[in-house]
Amino acid sequence: GNALLSSYGTTIFEVMSRLSEEHGAINLGQGFPDDRGPADVLQTAADALLTGWNQYPSMMGTPDLRQALAGHARRFYGLEIDWKTETMVTSGATEALTACLLGLINPGDEVVLFQPMYDSYLPIVRLAGGVPRFVSLKAPDWSFSRADLEAAFSPRTKLVLINDPLNPAAKVFGREELELIAEYVQRFDALAVCDEVYEHLVFDGRRHIPLMTLPGMRDRCLKIGSAGKTFSLTGWKVGYVTAPPHLLQPVAKAHQFLTFTTPPNLQAAVAYGLGKEEGYFTALADGLQAKRDRLSAGLRSAGFDVLPGAGTYFVVADISRFGFDGDDQAFCRWLVAEAKVAAIPVSAFFVENAPTTVVRFCFSKKDEVLDEAIARLHKRF
Amino acid sequence: GNALLSSYGTTIFEVMSRLSEEHGAINLGQGFPDDRGPADVLQTAADALLTGWNQYPSMMGTPDLRQALAGHARRFYGLEIDWKTETMVTSGATEALTACLLGLINPGDEVVLFQPMYDSYLPIVRLAGGVPRFVSLKAPDWSFSRADLEAAFSPRTKLVLINDPLNPAAKVFGREELELIAEYVQRFDALAVCDEVYEHLVFDGRRHIPLMTLPGMRDRCLKIGSAGKTFSLTGWKVGYVTAPPHLLQPVAKAHQFLTFTTPPNLQAAVAYGLGKEEGYFTALADGLQAKRDRLSAGLRSAGFDVLPGAGTYFVVADISRFGFDGDDQAFCRWLVAEAKVAAIPVSAFFVENAPTTVVRFCFSKKDEVLDEAIARLHKRF
Ligand SMILES: CSCCC(=O)C(=O)O
Ligand SMILES: CSCCC(=O)C(=O)O
Repeated sequence: GNALLSSYGTTIFEVMSRLSEEHGAINLGQGFPDDRGPADVLQTAADALLTGWNQYPSMMGTPDLRQALAGHARRFYGLEIDWKTETMVTSGATEALTACLLGLINPGDEVVLFQPMYDSYLPIVRLAGGVPRFVSLKAPDWSFSRADLEAAFSPRTKLVLINDPLNPAAKVFGREELELIAEYVQRFDALAVCDEVYEHLVFDGRRHIPLMTLPGMRDRCLKIGSAGKTFSLTGWKVGYVTAPPHLLQPVAKAHQFLTFTTPPNLQAAVAYGLGKEEGYFTALADGLQAKRDRLSAGLRSAGFDVLPGAGTYFVVADISRFGFDGDDQAFCRWLVAEAKVAAIPVSAFFVENAPTTVVRFCFSKKDEVLDEAIARLHKRF
Repeated sequence: GNALLSSYGTTIFEVMSRLSEEHGAINLGQGFPDDRGPADVLQTAADALLTGWNQYPSMMGTPDLRQALAGHARRFYGLEIDWKTETMVTSGATEALTACLLGLINPGDEVVLFQPMYDSYLPIVRLAGGVPRFVSLKAPDWSFSRADLEAAFSPRTKLVLINDPLNPAAKVFGREELELIAEYVQRFDALAVCDEVYEHLVFDGRRHIPLMTLPGMRDRCLKIGSAGKTFSLTGWKVGYVTAPPHLLQPVAKAHQFLTFTTPPNLQAAVAYGLGKEEGYFTALADGLQAKRDRLSAGLRSAGFDVLPGAGTYFVVADISRFGFDGDDQAFCRWLVAEAKVAAIPVSAFFVENAPTTVVRFCFSKKDEVLDEAIARLHKRF
């Protein structure tokens, strides 16, 4: 068959997780924390399950969670969001993204994608009939230039898809970079789908800047967030979209045919969680920052060149000095089988011009797990 | 925009639920039970939430639930299913259906659809590039003939999509009807996507017959089920697909880009639920059968002609005698505003040749709610 979605391989995250299990490896591949998540959020979900509504909620999400999303946008970003017309809950950010792309892209529309990119972007853009135009970010700082945007945008550009903070690169876009993107979006009367699932996982005192907060961008952006990432509960699959009504409406039409609704007890708990005090969010980032530093130091001591990273669950490390030249995939297959540590080849996030000497490690793990992984690497390198 | 998924209206179920709320009506529109669901299943989900894994499970589903699906297929249908290669968990049956269609249909493939049909079918078939061919079932018994299939199937037929038991018609396909469908599927070397979410909601001592169990059909069918329907927990959004490996693999490729995974604590509870003793399943069907009879009698006493129904949450009633001629939608708008009872116009399930004098009522409600709805109808008719 050549059905549009089944021509792709199994997602690299699942592939590496399966290999990791087979080899009894430490899984620093797929991005998820290995802790339990906040006890109060879990308890709220359990209480809602036992005492609350377990039938279909509104397809847009529960009023509680939608109000909490508006409150969160105000508190963290100074955004005024009308919860009734500008918020929607989805079954995870993957679904949110798919709904945005299927709801907005008309066949033939051009879509600007930054490489490296999450592996669901391109299949869905293609399914929607979109024509991808790539901007390739360049390691080690994953930068881009005005000329790159000039080459990628055109009068046929419908939207740009930006992941900030950026998986796998751990890049947090700076204000000047965002301003440049905003300039092109406005010049070409385009939209921006902003995958900001790592919005609270930003380190070193930096703050995430939603593209939506830039001048002229409030009504051009669809901002996607993830409870899985914000509350370290990746299995919950609760995501959300914040967008002006004229953009959210077509996206809701797609959502209704993808999953329609999301479990109400999980929505109740996420609504509660979004209202948690500032301290929760800073502790989340501080804890992950310490883990980034711990794993980075360990990788360096094992001989890896670690690239700078400012957010997400990930660090990227250069493997040039270990041989495997030009094949980060082979390196990762070797690493999981021989060193018993799983990582993700960064080339999996590229369609063209992929770097082949960098791999991604996930650091959102218990310290002892990170230490054991480092010890295993030390034995091999 | 003419993005393929956003050219459709908001789903009739959401529209009527919103109207119902606005008018303070009794909502017999959207199909969901108003009880709490089985306490032991809820408790299992709460326990799993508080003590179990809340990070990404495998994209195919948890081993426990997948094994339970194989056990369920063996127990109820005598099917031997390999859980590791023939089962997949999805975020609700809507997602399962979308994954099946997007994973299997190649642009230009013909897809045979029976009208009336659930409102997500056609948008997704079109999104996948499929060409719909309709078989229109005729009230009051929603029958079809060999000639109907002869006209709809062709060498370009990729698959037939069948919903059995059938929403909204409450039809349960008989063995001879299924044999006829199986004959055409095999003659044209096609597949069948079997939306069997109401498999356990079958009344009057009848049993649901999965198309997959017919001779020659084991390797041509994808069977979709729904925990929401089987455990009266529609908000949970846990669905599943059972299919031979060569069909499940492309569907899994689509699933990974739609939602990727489903909350593991809900999966644990559904795994537990599927193992419940026979008595649970018969009590579920018996309870709903009594409600069907209660609402049907009430509708008849209020002057409606009630069509026979053998399963699902629904009864269909003829409204010809009430005027509104040729406009079941107008009748439903009037009914929700004036009688304060919400129903669904059956024409919403048709693309062409829609009947316009039948509406659907949902009976999966507390007896006192049904009685109050009947009282309201009595006041008006
Ligand atoms: C959908 S599984 C992937 C999790 C993730 O975001 C990643 O590992 O990059
Ligand atoms: C997705 S909401 C619709 C529920 C349902 O199956 C119906 O009412 O027909």
